[in-house]
Amino acid sequence: MNQQYQARIYVTLRPSVLDPAGTAVQSGLKHLGYENVEQIRIGKYIELKLKAENELQAQEQLHKICDQLLANPVIENYRFDLQILEPNLVGLNP
Amino acid sequence: MNQQYQARIYVTLRPSVLDPAGTAVQSGLKHLGYENVEQIRIGKYIELKLKAENELQAQEQLHKICDQLLANPVIENYRFDLQILEPNLVGLNP
Repeated sequence: MNQQYQARIYVTLRPSVLDPAGTAVQSGLKHLGYENVEQIRIGKYIELKLKAENELQAQEQLHKICDQLLANPVIENYRFDLQILEPNLVGLNP
Repeated sequence: MNQQYQARIYVTLRPSVLDPAGTAVQSGLKHLGYENVEQIRIGKYIELKLKAENELQAQEQLHKICDQLLANPVIENYRFDLQILEPNLVGLNP
């Protein structure tokens, strides 16, 4: 039987890539009086559930999904963590 | 002396709010042949550094920053984690 996993994926701009949205937020924070905040970088956070035979297969599939659709490998990095879902929780909405 | 913290902030849509971007990604994955993926939700992931007297003060300030600028509390939830930066790493770019 397939096992269901909860995946949390973090997509971030590569350090060498400019982040205009982060700069805008930083400037907004300065306007609001927060002078002690710096190096803001804005990325994407993606949650999904996937079924796979085992954790290795789930990882392989997530790498493909990230490379093909979720991240642009030219300008973005990604990482993810996987959590096994207990069978009695599968199908329940969070 | 102020201590510098690395903050990682996760902004997610509330479960009751529709996520058209997540639905689009899910449909894209189905087109690519990934039938085993479901419940995709897309949020924001923000990294920043901030200086504060102590961790409690840093947490209070982050809550204000999230409520005022980074998250829309009507439709979004947020959570964050904080990591203290070693003094000899402060000022270094990652």
